[in-house]
Amino acid sequence: MPYVNIKVTPTPTGITREQKAELIEGVAKVLKDVLGKPESLTTVVIDEVALDNWGSGGKQVQKPV
Amino acid sequence: MPYVNIKVTPTPTGITREQKAELIEGVAKVLKDVLGKPESLTTVVIDEVALDNWGSGGKQVQKPV
Amino acid sequence: MPYVNIKVTPTPTGITREQKAELIEGVAKVLKDVLGKPESLTTVVIDEVALDNWGSGGKQVQKPV
Amino acid sequence: MPYVNIKVTPTPTGITREQKAELIEGVAKVLKDVLGKPESLTTVVIDEVALDNWGSGGKQVQKPV
Amino acid sequence: MPYVNIKVTPTPTGITREQKAELIEGVAKVLKDVLGKPESLTTVVIDEVALDNWGSGGKQVQKPV
Amino acid sequence: MPYVNIKVTPTPTGITREQKAELIEGVAKVLKDVLGKPESLTTVVIDEVALDNWGSGGKQVQKPV
Repeated sequence: MPYVNIKVTPTPTGITREQKAELIEGVAKVLKDVLGKPESLTTVVIDEVALDNWGSGGKQVQKPV
Repeated sequence: MPYVNIKVTPTPTGITREQKAELIEGVAKVLKDVLGKPESLTTVVIDEVALDNWGSGGKQVQKPV
Repeated sequence: MPYVNIKVTPTPTGITREQKAELIEGVAKVLKDVLGKPESLTTVVIDEVALDNWGSGGKQVQKPV
Repeated sequence: MPYVNIKVTPTPTGITREQKAELIEGVAKVLKDVLGKPESLTTVVIDEVALDNWGSGGKQVQKPV
Repeated sequence: MPYVNIKVTPTPTGITREQKAELIEGVAKVLKDVLGKPESLTTVVIDEVALDNWGSGGKQVQKPV
Repeated sequence: MPYVNIKVTPTPTGITREQKAELIEGVAKVLKDVLGKPESLTTVVIDEVALDNWGSGGKQVQKPV
């Protein structure tokens, strides 16, 4: 039943399909390990946000981290 | 006053402009019918999510549903 | 696969358990009718927001609608 | 510690990088002025939503506002 | 048309009704000043998040900021 | 820079403060391990959703999972 939304800016090398699969798997596992939520019930959605659209400390992010 | 956010992966044929209009209209109608919220007050935002970015059951979604 | 988040302020009579069930059912049906998404794949989450916490037109909402 | 998500449709002239920087700065300032939250702790994420994907009053938005 | 969601932890003195009104007004004004969006079209929703439920730097937030 | 929002229904025994800390830590670690994002930059927000407010398969969730 958990729903997890990850909002993230690109990394210097961009985010590959495999990395997205690893994020999905890793987060579902944390919910299973900590709360016993079956991975079959967990939804994960990744939103990739352009640097210009992300503000931290009141400033636009200049380069990927 | 309701705000509804729909996050959805593409269907096999993609989501047309008309279908988005139908989603907006249909959801606003449900809120009017069930809670009496005037459709004029309802905001609906549709986020289309790439398959690679959607995890279900701990796995990346492979094909559109 | 759809995930729908409904943010809503209370109505004059409050939102009953049955009304929440009707919202969930109604929204899942719209996604099936419009996009062919099986209802079994649709997640709906309802966030009830206090009037003080909702701004429309730059002003705090005064009374339930 | 605040996290602010701005979902917005394009304006007639589009949203420039500088305007996004001004939105980020302005919103972080409001949180500092009103709640005393240090701007260094505020995250702002801007989601630009296509007109077709935005419904208001049960209808798709026709032109940028 | 903008929709702004503010997620915030309590301050040491808690967030008053008046402060919420100021947040709503301030954020709507930023969108008008920067993007020319009429304040009448802006929706702001404030989600107050308990300290235990907020993680920063991989740790639970210990005290209100 | 990542922002992660976890929406979750209670478990049969409720979600303890320690479990929330473990969720925060675990998710931040996944983002570091997979994308190299420093844990100091990761924000995690947990929204606990009442069973009545969660729909799965078009139905209200009946009991905690």
